[in-house]
Amino acid sequence: MTLGPGREFDHIRRFLQRAHTTGPGVLVGPGDDCAVLSDGRVALSCDLSIEHIHFERAWLSLEDIGWRAVNAALSDLAACAARPVGALASLAVASDDDTAERIMSGVADGLLAHGAVLLGGDLTRSPGPVVLDITVAGSVVEPVLRSGAKPGNEIWVTGQLGGAAAAIRAWQSNTAADPAAAAAFRRPRARTAEALWLAQSAALRAMIDLSDGLAGDAAHLAAASGVRIVLEAATLPVHPAARPFPDNGIALALGGGDDYELCFAADAHVVEAVADAFAETFGLPLRRVGYVEAGSGVALLDAAGRPRPMPAAGFDHFASESP
Amino acid sequence: MTLGPGREFDHIRRFLQRAHTTGPGVLVGPGDDCAVLSDGRVALSCDLSIEHIHFERAWLSLEDIGWRAVNAALSDLAACAARPVGALASLAVASDDDTAERIMSGVADGLLAHGAVLLGGDLTRSPGPVVLDITVAGSVVEPVLRSGAKPGNEIWVTGQLGGAAAAIRAWQSNTAADPAAAAAFRRPRARTAEALWLAQSAALRAMIDLSDGLAGDAAHLAAASGVRIVLEAATLPVHPAARPFPDNGIALALGGGDDYELCFAADAHVVEAVADAFAETFGLPLRRVGYVEAGSGVALLDAAGRPRPMPAAGFDHFASESP
Repeated sequence: MTLGPGREFDHIRRFLQRAHTTGPGVLVGPGDDCAVLSDGRVALSCDLSIEHIHFERAWLSLEDIGWRAVNAALSDLAACAARPVGALASLAVASDDDTAERIMSGVADGLLAHGAVLLGGDLTRSPGPVVLDITVAGSVVEPVLRSGAKPGNEIWVTGQLGGAAAAIRAWQSNTAADPAAAAAFRRPRARTAEALWLAQSAALRAMIDLSDGLAGDAAHLAAASGVRIVLEAATLPVHPAARPFPDNGIALALGGGDDYELCFAADAHVVEAVADAFAETFGLPLRRVGYVEAGSGVALLDAAGRPRPMPAAGFDHFASESP
Repeated sequence: MTLGPGREFDHIRRFLQRAHTTGPGVLVGPGDDCAVLSDGRVALSCDLSIEHIHFERAWLSLEDIGWRAVNAALSDLAACAARPVGALASLAVASDDDTAERIMSGVADGLLAHGAVLLGGDLTRSPGPVVLDITVAGSVVEPVLRSGAKPGNEIWVTGQLGGAAAAIRAWQSNTAADPAAAAAFRRPRARTAEALWLAQSAALRAMIDLSDGLAGDAAHLAAASGVRIVLEAATLPVHPAARPFPDNGIALALGGGDDYELCFAADAHVVEAVADAFAETFGLPLRRVGYVEAGSGVALLDAAGRPRPMPAAGFDHFASESP
């Protein structure tokens, strides 16, 4: 279950605590990146994208809208170490031209890049904003959940953080985005193969994908595992396009969102042993960014190991700036 | 894949013909009521509901919106003779009050009535119309597809047709709807148990759920099976609330939509043998409404067996009346 930040969703959080969410045939219910059915160990997740909330057409081509949405959903499968099979696409568009076809073409390309196919969907003409909801289905033998992190584990992340957020900041201030940052926002690539490789190569204790930003997603992982996560600011793999931003991009890397990288917990030293092979295989950095200790929440340390305040949630761009 | 009527979706139909929609792990791809994964024989379908397109809040309580959407999606599982396991709900609402909670309460109640649970979802605050996309997952041993009807088969439908459409007509002309018609629209009940019973009790050759209206859905079934379906107007189980409408409600029963009953093809005489037991078990009529012959399309016969024109698609209320 993905929930937007902030107190506007307190109602629904309370509701989910009361709702009937476990039953026969359900291996993993709400609260993780995917639900997992007992039948065939099918992992499921959905991701809703709405124009003016999650994207503006000025920022994305129609094909990008489809690609982005499908990769955001596939990123949830990756976070459970599930192999994608296919997706259902529910789409509402206003116009009678090739809008739907171009968005669906991006969806299909996004799926194809992960060995998955379009399974079906629902298409509606609507005068409102473009709505695209992607539900992905995958298969998983041993799902990696958010809840398995233990004190003493290390916290690692794939890739670079803050690039997509840097692009949004640029567009919102009507300046040109760094091309690499723009690509990070427009064409994220779910870390499917990377997640399967990591789950095979090192015992992963817990994993989540970075959609809200490392600070928020690490907090989800900490809460699900009942632990405290300590992040070391100096180790964060800040995207080069984020570095010109305040605090050398650390705030964007922690709070920007839309990275669709993986964050996971593993026993000490086991990831270090495979990190070079990972980087060689995928051409993607793998960085230890912190550790797990007893407690709750997420803490941030500076280069000298002193606690420093977590950048404020002012970087939650959609919560504050959507009309 | 559900597609709205009319030529505005020609683009996407062409696209789907080109798209990559079969692959490893896919037993049934787009074009039927559900997709079916090889893994665990999991059946999947989604249904997108958008305010002002599929419903008005003046017609439905917030709980009704959730109930209706989940039953519409479960109706697709029923059409494949799949047993519901759970659903993902993607919801966008504008307000900060209990709107989301009340809609989700209707979703959860709708699932519970079918022995299914909430698996997860995605919740977004959006200033636009209420958006609710429900993806249901079920398990199925032998999916009943749209494509198995053969010349000589009989065509049967469950329940009564045109009730929901009668309610919409009343509301659209600012009159009070018949209470039974209003209930048919607000609280449809997917024919889950009925479909499983029928699939056990009689060899079903093909099945579809009635969401667009019998004329349109029979046409989908005929096209998928490569046959012609002949409907006999005098046999149609017209909902009592539809009878005051023109043509004694036959046009509403054929073109009204939103019935969420089942329409299926079976060998001659096999359903007749179990129809009384069905009616006794479910308190629901089961009516033979026509037959299958070689050819294509859907024909309508009057009481004397003479061809009569199919009522025009003017009853597709959303295509013409949404802004």
